[in-house]
Amino acid sequence: MTALELNHDRGRCAIDIAPGLLDDRSALADAVSGRVLIVTDRNVAAHHLPRVERALAAHRPSTLVLPPGEPSKTLASWTQALDALVDLGAQRDATIVALGGGVVGDLAGFAAASWMRGIRVVQVPTTLLAQVDAAIGGKTGVNLPAGKNLVGAFHQPARVLIDPTTLTTLDGREFRAGLAEVVKYGAIRDAAFLDRLESDAPWLLDRDADRLTAAIERAVRHKVEVVADDEREAGQRALLNFGHTFGHALETETGYTRFLHGEAVAVGMVQAARLGVLLGDLAADDADRLAGLLERLELPTRRPDDVSPAALAEHMKLDKKNQAGRIRLVLLDALGAARVRDDIDPERILEVLEQ
Amino acid sequence: MTALELNHDRGRCAIDIAPGLLDDRSALADAVSGRVLIVTDRNVAAHHLPRVERALAAHRPSTLVLPPGEPSKTLASWTQALDALVDLGAQRDATIVALGGGVVGDLAGFAAASWMRGIRVVQVPTTLLAQVDAAIGGKTGVNLPAGKNLVGAFHQPARVLIDPTTLTTLDGREFRAGLAEVVKYGAIRDAAFLDRLESDAPWLLDRDADRLTAAIERAVRHKVEVVADDEREAGQRALLNFGHTFGHALETETGYTRFLHGEAVAVGMVQAARLGVLLGDLAADDADRLAGLLERLELPTRRPDDVSPAALAEHMKLDKKNQAGRIRLVLLDALGAARVRDDIDPERILEVLEQ
Repeated sequence: MTALELNHDRGRCAIDIAPGLLDDRSALADAVSGRVLIVTDRNVAAHHLPRVERALAAHRPSTLVLPPGEPSKTLASWTQALDALVDLGAQRDATIVALGGGVVGDLAGFAAASWMRGIRVVQVPTTLLAQVDAAIGGKTGVNLPAGKNLVGAFHQPARVLIDPTTLTTLDGREFRAGLAEVVKYGAIRDAAFLDRLESDAPWLLDRDADRLTAAIERAVRHKVEVVADDEREAGQRALLNFGHTFGHALETETGYTRFLHGEAVAVGMVQAARLGVLLGDLAADDADRLAGLLERLELPTRRPDDVSPAALAEHMKLDKKNQAGRIRLVLLDALGAARVRDDIDPERILEVLEQ
Repeated sequence: MTALELNHDRGRCAIDIAPGLLDDRSALADAVSGRVLIVTDRNVAAHHLPRVERALAAHRPSTLVLPPGEPSKTLASWTQALDALVDLGAQRDATIVALGGGVVGDLAGFAAASWMRGIRVVQVPTTLLAQVDAAIGGKTGVNLPAGKNLVGAFHQPARVLIDPTTLTTLDGREFRAGLAEVVKYGAIRDAAFLDRLESDAPWLLDRDADRLTAAIERAVRHKVEVVADDEREAGQRALLNFGHTFGHALETETGYTRFLHGEAVAVGMVQAARLGVLLGDLAADDADRLAGLLERLELPTRRPDDVSPAALAEHMKLDKKNQAGRIRLVLLDALGAARVRDDIDPERILEVLEQ
């Protein structure tokens, strides 16, 4: 088993990564205290809930099962979680176990952040995206009709338990979308990781346990390093947004229904790389190599023809990461070397979007 | 003007105390950034809103005016504040100005804590209780039907602006209830402050600007010291609960309508002191002196005859600060010296409640 630690401004978060971890009852039982509320969704519950409930039986857990998907990430679901905590008689020593993907983790994390000003949350991510990104670093929140993640908190989990075997039941598209975020770590800070992902690509697509576990571990190490360095996103952490400003524009323009987040990020990373080439910062070969890796991982890398470049540019101007009206982007100087820029001429951005 | 600073785990909070501070437009204007939402209540708005809006005119502030009192401290009011932020197009650099008492401060603080995972809040407390306690230290939250402050966050204000002249329009009972919390700081950590409060009592009741400002300043210094030492209530900060476990029981038993919080705390402090006497830790003269000071400040110091001691004892057993089923109390060893205890025989507590 791999045990990592994330030191943050309010303590320490232990992150365990091991195939079969969810079958280790003591790993789960040791991670909780007080009364326990398990938050999950219907799909994940079908595969994993019984053994989690068994492992925590001594804590007489309650379970809140949500409909799967982004529509559950609302204030209404959050108040359902609060109601469940009321019914449980949860005190300050209570624990929420978030069993699921990013939606469950963000929602359960925000419930834990806000119940009695903060109780323990244990993240048990069951999607690749959540395992290498969402479950680590303490970002929690829900969507409002006006926008995504408008309400939330920074609230570090007490523990993260990652069992890569949970990915065997994950939908193929969801799985590949998670690989896009794995590639991202290589693109922004670890060129050697890209080499490894290139040679491991066929095995990763087959969900080979060993190579997948190794890739998750390496990705998680990057996330931990970045977050420990910069918990509140003043500097380093912003680099994790590589591909995201372009990607969010694509998600927004297509109504969040056509692309999974990771898929949009894959397209966005290639667009960001091409912008780097256009600006003379990045070698064209490097941009091609990044696009090639994403294609080998069966991810989209191009704007669909029916999506208007001008509309995407418009969305990017409204991105919430912008400051003083300037579009903030993460661009590459080389594979493995990224930097935040806010001095890019919008005309150049449009040029890339039109490619 | 007195300028204090609170260093906390995520930065620094500047606290300014001066009569007439709200007439100093630059003090307010310098404290905010981005778009501004002012949260206040109807009573406070009538007295103070126009000059605050004028001072912030350059920021084109929006204002949310709530009905006064505890019934506004709900998730519904909080979502109103979020809606107002949506309408404002508030970004991460936006500011909420909390203009009012503890209810407004807690609610507005929680809105600021949770909008985009935390934006700037400036606390402008206009009740004595809020000036010496609630506005300082970062506790925010709202009530649920199941209990008070069940949902919230720790979120330090960027700035606290205290203008003691706002107290001239405060209801007399509200004002005196605030004095109870001022007395508390003397009781738990500053016996000399009690001497001063005893000699100043008539002037304080008359709301003499100089003596009131001096008392507020000394109380705020204590709060700042305690919070800086122990932001998350592991040790020192718990001493601020002196009188509160007894007091909460009285508030709960009387349905939160008969006693103001500070009044219940006044009764609770005397009961806690009497318990110390009963245990042989505190001199009877000291308990009498504390009760005498509170009486001079026209605060209640005794359980009303129609309130059942057994019912109060029952509420104390359910206090959320209890751990492992043991009642946690702050007791005095002397005036100015307090300590947390969880080893008190419930029979002795009942004995004091019956006095």
